[in-house]
Amino acid sequence: MPSYALLFEYDGTPFVGWQRQATGLSVQQVLEEAAAHLNGGEVPTVIAAGRTDAGVHAEGQVAQVTLAGDLPPERVREALNFHTKPHPIAVLGAAVMPEDWSARFSAIGRAYRFRILNRRARPALDLGRVWHVQRRLDAAAMHEAAQGLLGKHDFSAYRATACQAKSPLRTLDRLDVARLGDEVVITAAARAFLHHQVRNMVGTLVEVGMGRRPVSWPRSVLEGRDRGRAGQTAPPEGLVLTGVRYPEAIDWR
Amino acid sequence: MPSYALLFEYDGTPFVGWQRQATGLSVQQVLEEAAAHLNGGEVPTVIAAGRTDAGVHAEGQVAQVTLAGDLPPERVREALNFHTKPHPIAVLGAAVMPEDWSARFSAIGRAYRFRILNRRARPALDLGRVWHVQRRLDAAAMHEAAQGLLGKHDFSAYRATACQAKSPLRTLDRLDVARLGDEVVITAAARAFLHHQVRNMVGTLVEVGMGRRPVSWPRSVLEGRDRGRAGQTAPPEGLVLTGVRYPEAIDWR
Repeated sequence: MPSYALLFEYDGTPFVGWQRQATGLSVQQVLEEAAAHLNGGEVPTVIAAGRTDAGVHAEGQVAQVTLAGDLPPERVREALNFHTKPHPIAVLGAAVMPEDWSARFSAIGRAYRFRILNRRARPALDLGRVWHVQRRLDAAAMHEAAQGLLGKHDFSAYRATACQAKSPLRTLDRLDVARLGDEVVITAAARAFLHHQVRNMVGTLVEVGMGRRPVSWPRSVLEGRDRGRAGQTAPPEGLVLTGVRYPEAIDWR
Repeated sequence: MPSYALLFEYDGTPFVGWQRQATGLSVQQVLEEAAAHLNGGEVPTVIAAGRTDAGVHAEGQVAQVTLAGDLPPERVREALNFHTKPHPIAVLGAAVMPEDWSARFSAIGRAYRFRILNRRARPALDLGRVWHVQRRLDAAAMHEAAQGLLGKHDFSAYRATACQAKSPLRTLDRLDVARLGDEVVITAAARAFLHHQVRNMVGTLVEVGMGRRPVSWPRSVLEGRDRGRAGQTAPPEGLVLTGVRYPEAIDWR
């Protein structure tokens, strides 16, 4: 029973999120039902490196699936792309992995991008891909504030109430904020994130960007460890899982 | 009766194109019906700098409209953004213009971008925004071939049969082809373009990129002045009107 890694992108708009739910169609369900065609009709379990919420997109999500037959990875990729139609999911690569490899637990890094459209007019071309903030943001102040969150901390203040992680300790490796014309783009990297951590950090940094809070505030929220003190959870549509890192190079086909 | 310039973006996917047509909803119709709310209910004519086809997008389209009342441009912008809802059109700016100014005839430059997604897997995140070409393209060869089209020429070979321009003479100022990861991006600039000119040039350059035709071919097609000899018309969804230039600086509000 060979184990495959899958590298794929999706538009999160029409899905209830990565994870299977009774309330609607998930990315996991579409992939598992597509994989069943390669598994003698039996629906296998597909496990992702990062479980994204409803509306969150992915450019470089990684998942694993074990199939009954020995298929070349190119075949797995092509067949999944055929059977996931017409849903906005595209498998970019597949690879045969050792039995002890885990998409989730072997990952040593996850990276996200969050896009804010910072202008008066609502988004037309980027509808569903950005958070629209009309008030002018000071991206330099947001970046400076973000640097106070780097390193290993108890991120309880930036954690969703529903977060199932055993420990609130996480090590934030990168949190950059930059202005690109009308956009303010936040890039975040860590070994792993808590549930809603990126969106809560973004919502908190935006308070600084609007001038409502000082640059030191996101750090003091962190130290308070109290979710009630942080800014709002930024909306999901601005968020994209851009990539997952593993210690070994994966031979994507 | 003040004349206003409008700067706006739109997602071309749901429209029959810029121009009003009996067959469906156009960008022009949505804008004109929105402008009627500022014009005592009378539907004014909105004239665009570049009439885009169905499925073609715009990041920086410019148009003009004459309204009965004297309104500050900020008000025109905000009201149009309100009344164009929920259509994917966003007015980025408005300006009061002299009576002899024409969005179409005063323009001295138009710029387009065409995006090709060049990979095996179909697009998920960029569905409707790219032309999907699976076979690997040689972007450097395409760029070299494109340089043979620069300058003032009779572009009959790259013109749509339906093109209404009086003269097939156009001066192509820029036609760059560059690879950005999985994408091949073509940028084109000229004072004006013939109908389908960009898409026909892209379709022809792709033949070179696939190695089916030599680098010299697009130039020899140009010299043949015969539409039948050029490559296919690239699909509309990869094309975006990125901007329109005027001799004077416009004070967008």
